[in-house]
Amino acid sequence: MNASHHESPPDMSTRRIGLWLVGAWGNVGTTVAVGLAALQKKLMPTTGLVTELPMFAKAGLPEFSEFIVGGHEVRPNTYYNAAQVLWQNSRMFSPDLLDQVEDVLETFDANVRPGTLVNVGNAINTIARQGGSSQESTTESPLAAIERLTADLVGFKDTLKLDHVIVVNLASTEPASSIPPNDPVLATWKALEEALNSEKPLDLPASSLYAIAAFNSGCTYINFTPSVGSNLPALAELADLRKALHGGRDGKTGETLLKSVLAPMFRARNLEVKSWVGHNILGNADGQILNDPNNKATKVNSKDRLLGEILGYKPQSLVSIEYIESLGDWKTAWDHVHFDGFLGTRMTMQVTWQGCDSALAAPLVIDLARLADREKRAGGSGVMSFLSSFFKSPMGTDLAEFAAQNLVLADWAKKASKS
Amino acid sequence: MNASHHESPPDMSTRRIGLWLVGAWGNVGTTVAVGLAALQKKLMPTTGLVTELPMFAKAGLPEFSEFIVGGHEVRPNTYYNAAQVLWQNSRMFSPDLLDQVEDVLETFDANVRPGTLVNVGNAINTIARQGGSSQESTTESPLAAIERLTADLVGFKDTLKLDHVIVVNLASTEPASSIPPNDPVLATWKALEEALNSEKPLDLPASSLYAIAAFNSGCTYINFTPSVGSNLPALAELADLRKALHGGRDGKTGETLLKSVLAPMFRARNLEVKSWVGHNILGNADGQILNDPNNKATKVNSKDRLLGEILGYKPQSLVSIEYIESLGDWKTAWDHVHFDGFLGTRMTMQVTWQGCDSALAAPLVIDLARLADREKRAGGSGVMSFLSSFFKSPMGTDLAEFAAQNLVLADWAKKASKS
Amino acid sequence: MNASHHESPPDMSTRRIGLWLVGAWGNVGTTVAVGLAALQKKLMPTTGLVTELPMFAKAGLPEFSEFIVGGHEVRPNTYYNAAQVLWQNSRMFSPDLLDQVEDVLETFDANVRPGTLVNVGNAINTIARQGGSSQESTTESPLAAIERLTADLVGFKDTLKLDHVIVVNLASTEPASSIPPNDPVLATWKALEEALNSEKPLDLPASSLYAIAAFNSGCTYINFTPSVGSNLPALAELADLRKALHGGRDGKTGETLLKSVLAPMFRARNLEVKSWVGHNILGNADGQILNDPNNKATKVNSKDRLLGEILGYKPQSLVSIEYIESLGDWKTAWDHVHFDGFLGTRMTMQVTWQGCDSALAAPLVIDLARLADREKRAGGSGVMSFLSSFFKSPMGTDLAEFAAQNLVLADWAKKASKS
Amino acid sequence: MNASHHESPPDMSTRRIGLWLVGAWGNVGTTVAVGLAALQKKLMPTTGLVTELPMFAKAGLPEFSEFIVGGHEVRPNTYYNAAQVLWQNSRMFSPDLLDQVEDVLETFDANVRPGTLVNVGNAINTIARQGGSSQESTTESPLAAIERLTADLVGFKDTLKLDHVIVVNLASTEPASSIPPNDPVLATWKALEEALNSEKPLDLPASSLYAIAAFNSGCTYINFTPSVGSNLPALAELADLRKALHGGRDGKTGETLLKSVLAPMFRARNLEVKSWVGHNILGNADGQILNDPNNKATKVNSKDRLLGEILGYKPQSLVSIEYIESLGDWKTAWDHVHFDGFLGTRMTMQVTWQGCDSALAAPLVIDLARLADREKRAGGSGVMSFLSSFFKSPMGTDLAEFAAQNLVLADWAKKASKS
Repeated sequence: MNASHHESPPDMSTRRIGLWLVGAWGNVGTTVAVGLAALQKKLMPTTGLVTELPMFAKAGLPEFSEFIVGGHEVRPNTYYNAAQVLWQNSRMFSPDLLDQVEDVLETFDANVRPGTLVNVGNAINTIARQGGSSQESTTESPLAAIERLTADLVGFKDTLKLDHVIVVNLASTEPASSIPPNDPVLATWKALEEALNSEKPLDLPASSLYAIAAFNSGCTYINFTPSVGSNLPALAELADLRKALHGGRDGKTGETLLKSVLAPMFRARNLEVKSWVGHNILGNADGQILNDPNNKATKVNSKDRLLGEILGYKPQSLVSIEYIESLGDWKTAWDHVHFDGFLGTRMTMQVTWQGCDSALAAPLVIDLARLADREKRAGGSGVMSFLSSFFKSPMGTDLAEFAAQNLVLADWAKKASKS
Repeated sequence: MNASHHESPPDMSTRRIGLWLVGAWGNVGTTVAVGLAALQKKLMPTTGLVTELPMFAKAGLPEFSEFIVGGHEVRPNTYYNAAQVLWQNSRMFSPDLLDQVEDVLETFDANVRPGTLVNVGNAINTIARQGGSSQESTTESPLAAIERLTADLVGFKDTLKLDHVIVVNLASTEPASSIPPNDPVLATWKALEEALNSEKPLDLPASSLYAIAAFNSGCTYINFTPSVGSNLPALAELADLRKALHGGRDGKTGETLLKSVLAPMFRARNLEVKSWVGHNILGNADGQILNDPNNKATKVNSKDRLLGEILGYKPQSLVSIEYIESLGDWKTAWDHVHFDGFLGTRMTMQVTWQGCDSALAAPLVIDLARLADREKRAGGSGVMSFLSSFFKSPMGTDLAEFAAQNLVLADWAKKASKS
Repeated sequence: MNASHHESPPDMSTRRIGLWLVGAWGNVGTTVAVGLAALQKKLMPTTGLVTELPMFAKAGLPEFSEFIVGGHEVRPNTYYNAAQVLWQNSRMFSPDLLDQVEDVLETFDANVRPGTLVNVGNAINTIARQGGSSQESTTESPLAAIERLTADLVGFKDTLKLDHVIVVNLASTEPASSIPPNDPVLATWKALEEALNSEKPLDLPASSLYAIAAFNSGCTYINFTPSVGSNLPALAELADLRKALHGGRDGKTGETLLKSVLAPMFRARNLEVKSWVGHNILGNADGQILNDPNNKATKVNSKDRLLGEILGYKPQSLVSIEYIESLGDWKTAWDHVHFDGFLGTRMTMQVTWQGCDSALAAPLVIDLARLADREKRAGGSGVMSFLSSFFKSPMGTDLAEFAAQNLVLADWAKKASKS
Repeated sequence: MNASHHESPPDMSTRRIGLWLVGAWGNVGTTVAVGLAALQKKLMPTTGLVTELPMFAKAGLPEFSEFIVGGHEVRPNTYYNAAQVLWQNSRMFSPDLLDQVEDVLETFDANVRPGTLVNVGNAINTIARQGGSSQESTTESPLAAIERLTADLVGFKDTLKLDHVIVVNLASTEPASSIPPNDPVLATWKALEEALNSEKPLDLPASSLYAIAAFNSGCTYINFTPSVGSNLPALAELADLRKALHGGRDGKTGETLLKSVLAPMFRARNLEVKSWVGHNILGNADGQILNDPNNKATKVNSKDRLLGEILGYKPQSLVSIEYIESLGDWKTAWDHVHFDGFLGTRMTMQVTWQGCDSALAAPLVIDLARLADREKRAGGSGVMSFLSSFFKSPMGTDLAEFAAQNLVLADWAKKASKS
């Protein structure tokens, strides 16, 4: 069913693009690396890749072969090893496939550098330390972290002679930041820069430190998590200053995707949703981190928001995420929707979703990198709001319905195909 | 949540509109009658009515009070009695409500005339005879039926001084017609008219006889069932000749609505659907009729078609509808969708839908009548393709995705609001 | 299907039995009252009553007509009114039925007395005060409460010349008691009595105060909730002293019933349960009380225990109960069971249960009253362990499997049928 | 959680036991072979084996190492190859495991002989011919088939010096036999033998021909399918004549197991089941065979029977089995149970079961072989009714409830442990 990958236009010279994964050896990062290696060797079909839909056939997107993976990570590991654990716990890759891409994975491993643990919160810190993270990453100041991360990105770009580096945040969800969202210190880059330079530097979340490092080194930054990242007026300003692209937040892969598809149906039929309950269970590292109530709050908030946005009113809703080890990477969700129809007749829809989280997320990461590179080549900068269909809390737009978000993406594809 | 019903513009004189239900005392017909009566008396909220969405607030749609119900029916009954059975078997209306609208229902009863049993197939015939249908309806010729039905419609219109009559087919699903769809006799009105006038008249399905009667008497015809109705080149021609409006087919109320909402999600994410299994169980008269394999085939075909249209390929699919008495009017569906994601990872989505069939269908019938009347007032004729979001097999368009169909409806609403 | 109620043996003189409900006008209490009235008038079938199974046909159980309802309640109300609210929120009784039993319900109402709010915890207190509970019930000392409750029971028995009164605790779940379970004060009746008589009397939960009142007035006490009730060594001693019957705890009506039926299947087939997740949502007053984390803990603990008891090992398990208003009395549960089969093959079973909580609980209350009265007539005293199949945390036995518990009940029925 | 395998009593000499699988290279047969090999090499835990429950620890059951696999099969194949296909289609065995047991599987392959296609019906015949079955198996007379099959069994036993051979029928479900069940020819062995010897020999189903061959060669016969097998008075007589053990029918592995566990719950609580709908979908060869309506009827009948037996009345029920390729060996079932509780309140339970069919069946086959061998060693003959918990339609008993069947098995284990 998948469109075979489009032929590149003859006049387009080959690019060298860096895909820099923050949380490089996590489940999603590992699946991105294995998947990209498999696609480069033409070992697997392109199922799951939005950018392989017919509408992108002539949009001038980069080839899989043009990407080189690197990243930041707080625990030592290798892609091959991380992939084997995914196989054992979640039956995700066939062992055959892993053996065929081991050589590529090793070249990716060579580009992974220690991430930072500054302001990541207790849960991530604990897991990272248990996993043997380096001292450096835990004791540095925010400013030192930015400098070190920036140097890593510059080194990656220069050493490998890359045309463009896209930093994608795949790290575990951070707890809510201690800085109030409307604090003036977050309003301008000048104020923020000063606060970071001060004697007692501001506790800016790690995800934002990575964003600053990305902008300062001329990279694109995409936030695939609900953490803050570049979603601050000060950082939007910095992105503009550096003519950098950015986008986010929180990849829309499972239950929330369903919500953004199903809620519009209720609205279109004037069926009144009385309650929407969603229970999610999963057994991967994300699940473990979310066992910390602070981290969970960030996630649940991101999942729960769009219901009111789509329906125009706020039904009683409940979202839970619980760590159940036996599920591994298979996030299982039960949604119970109670709604009133004509003459007050109360009806019920239930959905159970059994999706492999990393296999749903990873192709979107590759999609985002391809789309961002095409936008970069077209001279774009600032927030990429045309990516809204990929995110739970899309930046730069109020569009919440999946179908409407897709129309925006289709428009972008049409324009890209013409230029 | 529902917009209160819009105030009519001062310059719009009150209309008298007939809503003629074929299958008048069936479950959907009864719910339409009870619901319309309740809305006229402002006893119930407008939940479930698409035409009460904000986008129609200034579209000049007729008021609920402007409608008068009549219809054809093959079994003697009354609305009050039919509604009480629905209460007993399906807990659908509160007894309180019924008592409050009994007077209006009696006025509706007075407008119900014997339907025809010509070419309705064995299953419907059997049930009708058991229910005590009149002799007349079973022995007449197709031509005699058309004449009788036409006279009923003309009588309704003239006696009650109606500006516009909308005939809506709510009768049980007919078996597949014995006439091949590409038979030249169906290609032009001239050929069809001759075949009906011949010595051995053509076995044209009852639903089409009603459509002819509607067109000949200057009424609008809407087919809410998968039966043939006006979906023939010959009848499209007749509609044009008579400057009549028509539309259809098969109200999209439950599982198919879900499919037209969910299948686009899989396509938009390039997730390959490997199989889509849908089992429906229900316990109303519709279910009994569908126990006849011939009638079931017509229905299942209508439900199953759109998957390939939306996805662009045909996954293995299975649709079953079974009669389970205990469910009454509560159609319960289980859908099991198996799909491949990135790197061939096979995942599963399951949906169970517990919807009260008549409560889902009835408001759409009222919506269709309001929209058709507005279109009539604007001078329209021919197929109303802007109604595609209401139907499983929409006439006059290839649009299969629910979101896309809704955009067409929204456009229509915008135009109607301006004129 | 239900055995028609057995004819009483001719030599059995009619008894007068009091069924005293603590939480009289709650949902379960109301359903007991309406149901008993309907059964006395032979208006409804005996579906849902265990004691109407054929094995009890000759066990000499009391007739429905022999019961008179009374009770304690902290909020003013009437049965008719409480039942109407259940109809409006949960479509539980048909309005017809209510009208037919209104007279009986009024006689029951006359026997309801103010309950106590001593040591019921904040959540119940708040709800009771909002509902207009009397001053008396909130300010009295534990001892005063016992005396008042005892007087109510004695009054009920004497005034109505009852042979036997069975007190059933149906009140909302209390938070965990502040007294440690192994506190010596709970070990003997002497110690407990002294502690209650002391200057600063012991904070004994209300459910235990009712139990003491029951024993002291010669009544039987049955605890249908997870609250402490008579489940203390000191109170077991008191029951023995007074030759009183008692039993409990926590009626097994929905998800836990399923667990006690399904878990033995996994054990019998040596399938290893890796995780068992159960999410419950409900919208009645019970659900509101359980929104208080302290009360919820008591409930969840009772639901979660038996898995380990049946399987012989403790899989990861999760039980949640959440208040979702739209569900009314319809407790809906989703259970996700992950288990390993042969060669480590991991499989999944999911159950969704949509049960009307009060309609599941109420017949069991009537069953328990009939069984307890038969046991009383046979001269029994102490814990009724033969009732284990009715409870989540059965007293007086370790039996956890439903099938095994039923065998014990069947044995009892056999003996009762012989004597 | 699994009991480690019991130590054999010192005085028990090692036995040599043949496990002869009819349908040797089918999915269940292959899983039995791989599993037995893995258990012999102690590579896998004993999860899923009933005979590894503590109650069998001292029952003197044979060790896994005492078994040698052979069988009849109509299509050429090897265990290793069949297992690899299962891996590819259903992710059933890890490739690692297969490599470790390849040598044992080859010794099993050497014992597989061509099965017979006499009277297996069209569906099996077609599949077998497509798969390259030998000429011999399709053209022989019933008598010739019996003789050939008998010779195979005798050869297996003699060549490998086996103490006992247990024949287990795992072949695809046959269509209903053309011989009426009450035909006198099936009533006695004499009549049946004559009919097989006649000029125009009786069309006895293949499953019964295998049973005769088993009895005639001194083997035990167990029917794990719904086909007729030894379930005829004539064959019960033959088994007695030959002092042979036999048992069956139709392994209870998934949805029916659930039914035999859940239906007793409804009965015990006097909840009236109004309808029980079960839809099964699966994608293995069994599913393909069941696409033939004749074969399906045999299967559905076996699945549907026990509901009435357990409940004592026959609710409306529906069982479907459909072939959905994408599911492979993962049989997925949706059960919808509608039941009435107190005061006629109608409630719903739904179960979805995602079980790997072969992984559920295979350990039971090994269990049955171990239990049958122990019974043989104890001198038993005739129908083994103590095996009822393993079968959908147990022979030699009316017990239908799973819990009751397990009590019988536990009794047997107790006796076996004493002798």
